[in-house]
Amino acid sequence: VRARLAFVASPFSRGRDLFRPRSGVETPRRTPRSGRGAPQTVNRVALGELTPDLTSYLGRAAYLQLSIFETASLAISIAPHTRGKNALSKVAASSLEKYDGLVAELTRSGHDPAATMEPFRREIDAFHRVTTGADWYETLVAGYVIAGLLDDFFVRLAEGLHAEQAQRIGALLRPEGASGYIVDELRTAIEANPQLASRLAMWGRRLVGDTLLIARSALAVPADTAPDEARLEPVFTEMIAAHTRRMDALGLTA
Amino acid sequence: VRARLAFVASPFSRGRDLFRPRSGVETPRRTPRSGRGAPQTVNRVALGELTPDLTSYLGRAAYLQLSIFETASLAISIAPHTRGKNALSKVAASSLEKYDGLVAELTRSGHDPAATMEPFRREIDAFHRVTTGADWYETLVAGYVIAGLLDDFFVRLAEGLHAEQAQRIGALLRPEGASGYIVDELRTAIEANPQLASRLAMWGRRLVGDTLLIARSALAVPADTAPDEARLEPVFTEMIAAHTRRMDALGLTA
Repeated sequence: VRARLAFVASPFSRGRDLFRPRSGVETPRRTPRSGRGAPQTVNRVALGELTPDLTSYLGRAAYLQLSIFETASLAISIAPHTRGKNALSKVAASSLEKYDGLVAELTRSGHDPAATMEPFRREIDAFHRVTTGADWYETLVAGYVIAGLLDDFFVRLAEGLHAEQAQRIGALLRPEGASGYIVDELRTAIEANPQLASRLAMWGRRLVGDTLLIARSALAVPADTAPDEARLEPVFTEMIAAHTRRMDALGLTA
Repeated sequence: VRARLAFVASPFSRGRDLFRPRSGVETPRRTPRSGRGAPQTVNRVALGELTPDLTSYLGRAAYLQLSIFETASLAISIAPHTRGKNALSKVAASSLEKYDGLVAELTRSGHDPAATMEPFRREIDAFHRVTTGADWYETLVAGYVIAGLLDDFFVRLAEGLHAEQAQRIGALLRPEGASGYIVDELRTAIEANPQLASRLAMWGRRLVGDTLLIARSALAVPADTAPDEARLEPVFTEMIAAHTRRMDALGLTA
């Protein structure tokens, strides 16, 4: 993850690398990690400064939540046992509740939900297609990793909305209680099978890369200017720290 | 539908035809319909007399509801537009709520939900595989027709449970409000395209046949005795009348 993070947040990449075709090959880190603590007087940004307008925020967050729901419901359909189907129904329900809450915010502010989500459909569908996983375990990891990262991201990004909305959306997206079963199921399978562990660790790295890219594209950074990536780095560093803890819980190296 | 109903409920078929391999070919009706009103002194059965024990009832109803949910979530995934995805999220949520309520009844009565559903998994998965549909429209019809028939059936079948449970389950399974979008979407497409109308009418007939069979297998009729199918006929006749009204709403002949 650290190597991958480098191209997301390196002060020298100036955003270009974010949009190159992803080959799945890890990019060598270009910036020595030790440089981060040095007195560079980097003007670190709060994520709230990059929050897009409410409509874009909600449209994107809602469509992404629908995509997370689709991954959960795919997992229900391919579950190899009834216990898994039943447990994942709670994950799907949690995701649908979040979606419904975001759509309610859109309706409350006078927007048509479908029309507001439409502009994000193509990009997020493409993201969804490459991040659903090839089997039960990969799909479980996908649901867990992507929901963990994106819910976290959109809670942080809500800081830039009006305080009342930020609070409602924070309360809506924060609950992560439904993932207990996924952790138990994956942990057991991973402990029993070292080959699965290495495959899923690799899959997790690909997921975090793709998910940070889709999160990155939600930021209100004008496309035609080179954003100061150094100011974004702390944002992604915190998200990755939380991600690393989630992977640890599975017994996987982030 | 009438021709198909004949082998479900004919007084002469004695249940055998219910379990023969289905060829998709309509069976000629063996009993003249006019015979129904004649003074045959048939001892008609209330569905509540055939209610299985609570555990079987809930296990089967819950797993079928999960299967209905899977059809709704498949429709979300293949929806050709964002409006459809958004509208179907309500159908999926409604179905998940029903599932969750049935599971809560299981838990309340001290049963493990997954273990209780397990015996029904194979049969219902097979039903699900052949009833999900080949495209967006067929999947919409499937969700609408199957949920309509089965929710209706399990509300009626609940009559044989304790009154309090019957009431709770009735309240749980009855709301059908989420299907408004499906009706509008299908009606518009069907009006515009006669070929689609005939394809979906045929698909609807296959669905009703398969769904009545899976409903039939929930009845507490000992497998080794020949049940008096004449006594079952009124039950299915009422279900099919409701089904016919639902097909009418789409502009399709049942």
